[in-house]
Amino acid sequence: MCTVNPLLFMEHAVRKERMGLEFKIIHKDAGSAARVGLITTPRGEIATPAFMPVGTKATVKAVSPDEVWDLGYRMILANAYHLYLRPGHELVERHGGLHKFMNWPGGILTDSGGFQVFSLARLRKVTEEGVIFQSHIDGSSRLFTPELSVEVQESLGSDIIMCLDDVKGYPVEKEVAREAGERTTRWAERCLKSKKKVDPALFGIVQGSMFSDLRELSARSLTDLNLDGYAVGGLSVGEPREVMVEMIEVTLPLIPERSLRYLMGVGKPADILDGVLRGVDLFDCVLPTRNARNGMLFTSGGEKNIKNACYRDDPEPPDPACACPLCSNYSMAYLRHLFLEKEIYGLRLATIHNLSFYNHMMESVRQAMLQDRVHSFVAEFLAGMEENND
Amino acid sequence: MCTVNPLLFMEHAVRKERMGLEFKIIHKDAGSAARVGLITTPRGEIATPAFMPVGTKATVKAVSPDEVWDLGYRMILANAYHLYLRPGHELVERHGGLHKFMNWPGGILTDSGGFQVFSLARLRKVTEEGVIFQSHIDGSSRLFTPELSVEVQESLGSDIIMCLDDVKGYPVEKEVAREAGERTTRWAERCLKSKKKVDPALFGIVQGSMFSDLRELSARSLTDLNLDGYAVGGLSVGEPREVMVEMIEVTLPLIPERSLRYLMGVGKPADILDGVLRGVDLFDCVLPTRNARNGMLFTSGGEKNIKNACYRDDPEPPDPACACPLCSNYSMAYLRHLFLEKEIYGLRLATIHNLSFYNHMMESVRQAMLQDRVHSFVAEFLAGMEENND
Repeated sequence: MCTVNPLLFMEHAVRKERMGLEFKIIHKDAGSAARVGLITTPRGEIATPAFMPVGTKATVKAVSPDEVWDLGYRMILANAYHLYLRPGHELVERHGGLHKFMNWPGGILTDSGGFQVFSLARLRKVTEEGVIFQSHIDGSSRLFTPELSVEVQESLGSDIIMCLDDVKGYPVEKEVAREAGERTTRWAERCLKSKKKVDPALFGIVQGSMFSDLRELSARSLTDLNLDGYAVGGLSVGEPREVMVEMIEVTLPLIPERSLRYLMGVGKPADILDGVLRGVDLFDCVLPTRNARNGMLFTSGGEKNIKNACYRDDPEPPDPACACPLCSNYSMAYLRHLFLEKEIYGLRLATIHNLSFYNHMMESVRQAMLQDRVHSFVAEFLAGMEENND
Repeated sequence: MCTVNPLLFMEHAVRKERMGLEFKIIHKDAGSAARVGLITTPRGEIATPAFMPVGTKATVKAVSPDEVWDLGYRMILANAYHLYLRPGHELVERHGGLHKFMNWPGGILTDSGGFQVFSLARLRKVTEEGVIFQSHIDGSSRLFTPELSVEVQESLGSDIIMCLDDVKGYPVEKEVAREAGERTTRWAERCLKSKKKVDPALFGIVQGSMFSDLRELSARSLTDLNLDGYAVGGLSVGEPREVMVEMIEVTLPLIPERSLRYLMGVGKPADILDGVLRGVDLFDCVLPTRNARNGMLFTSGGEKNIKNACYRDDPEPPDPACACPLCSNYSMAYLRHLFLEKEIYGLRLATIHNLSFYNHMMESVRQAMLQDRVHSFVAEFLAGMEENND
């Protein structure tokens, strides 16, 4: 039963020629940089601004691909760093690529590993060649280069791949930040050069730490490379929130209007809506899924902690305004019972609900933009969410 | 957000009059005591012999009610003991009963708590009145009586409720076993007397430890009460397997043929098929669900441990003969990856698969009986399963 038939891999050996990613702006908001767009990939269309659920290790934690799809998501994020370490990108490629491996029919964006090496790996040493680090899993020594990052992401079969970036912590000396920003651009050039496949889109990641002029330098040098899209990276590394917001404000206008703009690792509903108004097209964050597993639910009436005693006997769904499978079929009392008993099904229901909330928010903000009422929508949405915070 | 509107409970206050459970034998096997039957309840029909997945705490671990239903199950088991302690049967009743609370449209059989008090609770003391024990959750002292067990199960709204039984360990002195058996019958009388609702069926549990004559006494005195069905209880308490089989052999023929026969806590596929040939109609066991969460898969080619290194690169599904969502969409390599990464989705897929295997086995053995080939079916089935055992 343990013998693997090599012929079974053959069907995946022939790769079909595909068209790459296209991005079209459908509607621009008159009073802000916000826009509604449409990404077209060989796997279908993705309306923007879009939030991408995080499926780090080839699964969006606690839910199935079907559930993610049925909630309306058409693109998820996975992590090159994690899948490179385990189960290995070659294995995933042998099994037909990440889409087939995890049975996800939509788009996949993979992060390059730059941020994960920065935040997870031990004994990092950045050289011009790449990053030498110890695996956070088995302590083995690894060298991650821009070329390897592209190779890993191409092996996975991602629809959008990210350039390896040199991420620094906060605070950092300006000279160190300048060097890291310049290196990030040189690495982006190497990524572009080493890219073998036509179909995946390659995005650059703007660095520059918390220095406006370095952000500008980074953005200008990256956009000169004429990449397929641009991300704002190197944020949420310990800086105050207002500094982060300032860096987003500085960076976004430097990304050409026709390009996809991706704000990495953001975030809370308010931060996402703020990003939308500044013209961001793509977001990703572990918040809806991770908070769900901790019992924190996003609702139209604010955040609710399912473990609070006040929900013990509550026959209402978490959010009466929500049509997700949790809110359609279950009470707060039942969900709280599942959480207190550490029942797996509770994690799933809470995750489905939070992902439903996020996608509904994105659908609503797109709709509001098309109807030229995005500013009043955002104000009302945020006011509603402040009603209750357990 | 924390205010509970008492009016929301009102819709459940009016209880409709319902017909109780009916059991009809459809086909008898010529060469054994095996039979195919049909249970009719107000919630639909259940073909027998049937296996009931265990949903101890108002959820079948790691899967949704939809998934259990879609796999073909029409009855599950829940535990009065656990739900009495948390969240409390009164709470479940206020929320419309267990079916509504957990969103399960099929039948529910609840165990009385006798076995759970025996196996989980601390400082047990059995008196004629009932069992005094310390809750395994918070150490509080509780008295569980036959009347309370029925009250709990009726509050939950179970379709089949079990009489509280006095379970002893192994080995036990004959006089102690005799006393426990006789008490179990006296408690069954009290259960019958205290039953308030018409619709749930009340089953007695045959005790008598590992003494054939005590089993006979227990069965005869219980069947004299003309209950709705009978279970073989007090097994799997530490006795050798052959002793358990002997007790099943002794007890089953003493249950009237027209009655439902339920073999509690059994078991492995071979034990279930053995029970079927001896005329058992109902089974329950944590094995398919618990083993799934430990990475053990039942397949038509034997048991497979997904964590074994030989599956690292295996592109085959766990069981090519299986049409479950796991086997239709995923490889052993992906499932193993999920297990190694402790991803929740792996527990769900493995559970779905094992429950699919069990229900398929039950469907197949019913079909084989109807075609008068149950003995050859059982022999072939067991031979297939012995091919591989990791």
